Amino acid sequence: VSSIDCQSSQRTVTLPGLVNIATYVPSLSEGSKDFAKVAEISLASGFTMNRILPFGTEGSITDAAALEAAKSNTNNAAFTDFNFSVAATVNNSSELSTLASKVGSLVIPFNKLPGSINKVATVTDHFSVWPTSKPIVTDAKTTDLASILLLASLHNRNVHITGVSGKEDINLISLAKEKGLQVTCDISVYSLFLSKEDYPECKSLPSKADQDSLWENLSSVDCFSVGMLPSQVAYDLGKEVTPGLGIADTLPLLFSAVQDGKLTVEDIVSRLHTNPVRIFELHEQIDTSVQINIERVSPVNPAAEINWSPFADNKLLHVTVERVVLNGVPVSHEGAVSGAVLGRDVSSHRLP
Amino acid sequence: VSSIDCQSSQRTVTLPGLVNIATYVPSLSEGSKDFAKVAEISLASGFTMNRILPFGTEGSITDAAALEAAKSNTNNAAFTDFNFSVAATVNNSSELSTLASKVGSLVIPFNKLPGSINKVATVTDHFSVWPTSKPIVTDAKTTDLASILLLASLHNRNVHITGVSGKEDINLISLAKEKGLQVTCDISVYSLFLSKEDYPECKSLPSKADQDSLWENLSSVDCFSVGMLPSQVAYDLGKEVTPGLGIADTLPLLFSAVQDGKLTVEDIVSRLHTNPVRIFELHEQIDTSVQINIERVSPVNPAAEINWSPFADNKLLHVTVERVVLNGVPVSHEGAVSGAVLGRDVSSHRLP
Ligand SMILES: [Zn+2]
Ligand SMILES: [Zn+2]
Ligand SMILES: [Zn+2]
Ligand SMILES: [Zn+2]
Ligand SMILES: [Zn+2]
Ligand SMILES: [Zn+2]
Ligand SMILES: [Zn+2]
Ligand SMILES: [Zn+2]
Repeated sequence: VSSIDCQSSQRTVTLPGLVNIATYVPSLSEGSKDFAKVAEISLASGFTMNRILPFGTEGSITDAAALEAAKSNTNNAAFTDFNFSVAATVNNSSELSTLASKVGSLVIPFNKLPGSINKVATVTDHFSVWPTSKPIVTDAKTTDLASILLLASLHNRNVHITGVSGKEDINLISLAKEKGLQVTCDISVYSLFLSKEDYPECKSLPSKADQDSLWENLSSVDCFSVGMLPSQVAYDLGKEVTPGLGIADTLPLLFSAVQDGKLTVEDIVSRLHTNPVRIFELHEQIDTSVQINIERVSPVNPAAEINWSPFADNKLLHVTVERVVLNGVPVSHEGAVSGAVLGRDVSSHRLP
Repeated sequence: VSSIDCQSSQRTVTLPGLVNIATYVPSLSEGSKDFAKVAEISLASGFTMNRILPFGTEGSITDAAALEAAKSNTNNAAFTDFNFSVAATVNNSSELSTLASKVGSLVIPFNKLPGSINKVATVTDHFSVWPTSKPIVTDAKTTDLASILLLASLHNRNVHITGVSGKEDINLISLAKEKGLQVTCDISVYSLFLSKEDYPECKSLPSKADQDSLWENLSSVDCFSVGMLPSQVAYDLGKEVTPGLGIADTLPLLFSAVQDGKLTVEDIVSRLHTNPVRIFELHEQIDTSVQINIERVSPVNPAAEINWSPFADNKLLHVTVERVVLNGVPVSHEGAVSGAVLGRDVSSHRLP
């Protein structure tokens, strides 16, 4: 396929560089190739910016040493821009102030905090040391979600809730937004297209009722993310959890919903670019774009060939990422990444 | 001791009728004498109004039948005014609307709701059926406390937190009040005077640090209560949990703090009368008063003779409830109740 073919296509859509605000890298330990693999798949799939989650199956970024280890894996592997975040633990709040300038955000993994500890006290400690200029992200659910929304409101902090998937949770967030609380949220793209009806053995998938309420409350959803969900689904189904699961499915799934009249292209751009850039105070990437063809199945389907995907055989998905341009340089063509390492670590970026 | 002795004493203080906003009756089952015993001890101890907690060791008031059973025990036993409340469960929200007019408040026992259920959904269900004109009380702690404060704020409901005893909890309530949330709270009198330092085996007592923070945050404490704590302490220490534990200790303990300069008489009146009447929209009791002598140990010490008390041998406590007048009638003299049954069931009272 020649470059002229792509550009003259009637079914071509050009998007800005996409942001994955919750990129799961299975191993964050020094020497791992997972970051490189995830970055490459991301670029081929239309993402030009990755916000790396601070916990993997190997390693969590909870202190300076772990952050350095994770960063060492980005040498010659930065196919996209990226930033790291740091994870809150019960007792690392005092260390974190020194790390704040070196990461994109603080992530409070409510579901990993031990059940017996006083989460209010822990979160309050973290609020008191974390600069207001840096975002706070949490995966809190149900009563913990309500709890952190109150704390954020009382302490005048923004908070971003990641991976929302329950009906009551999205309703609570919608209500909180209505009442003027400074809360934003994302949902995993997989949670819009897979439910426990499809895979009853996957505990992290929403029920059908939960999924319906996500669609109904889309106006309250600021961002879409890839997140950990594809890896959790693979794990629950006994598949190998390889780096980059779910990333290549993102645009094909979302554009199938455009075709079904459930989403507009504008809905996608706002949730994978505009809102992420605003909420996480990211750089605008200059001369960066993603050109997709919405009537072709890619000859190189990353979902089918590189990684397991529950959607690999889905003939309804026919979106190809034709080309990706980063900082004015074409870096990916039909799933083949040029190998140019143009990405930057923007972890310490602050808005002027 | 003649009636003239009492009235001429230099050390006599006259209080309005006191309200116990959280009165524990061990058995709420039909045929129990516990209500009668609790009411008698209450009157002798200066309380002229009891708000009965809807859960005992036997029986919980979670539906109309249980309410009728508990009410049947008040015949010829109403030594004080009283009201009943109803307890929320995971699945009784739809029944409760019919009970709302028959009880003084809804109590949401957060610590008795099963851990696995979605408490946000349960509380939201109860908020949606319970009339805004009737109070809601809960014992929520830590993340559950933050959660219910958010829900109350989002749904524009008042909420009263009962039995606060943790440092972080009272700090959170203080902060919420500062920010204008419609929250009120009470602490158990025992929690001001007993800590885990005294009885390490009593899990429900505050730590010394928790207790210190209760004293420091007294301005955020709307009411004092007797509550379940004295019965929990007795249980933990292997003592018999007889009806009325802790009630007779209330005024002696609080006036010992007056003597120590830690409380004023005004602090006591506001938290055992004025604020309870306002928060729970209770009747003013006409011609009702409590006369105490703050320099005598009672010849009939209810704490020592009727019930076990950790303070029975405390010589620093020398407050006697000399006489109690209810609706213009002297009904108790030096711990001896006249037997007149002047109390009314004000469960269905509504402010005009
Ligand atoms: Zn092409
Ligand atoms: Zn489906
Ligand atoms: Zn932009
Ligand atoms: Zn910058
Ligand atoms: Zn006398
Ligand atoms: Zn003491
Ligand atoms: Zn009054
Ligand atoms: Zn009335």
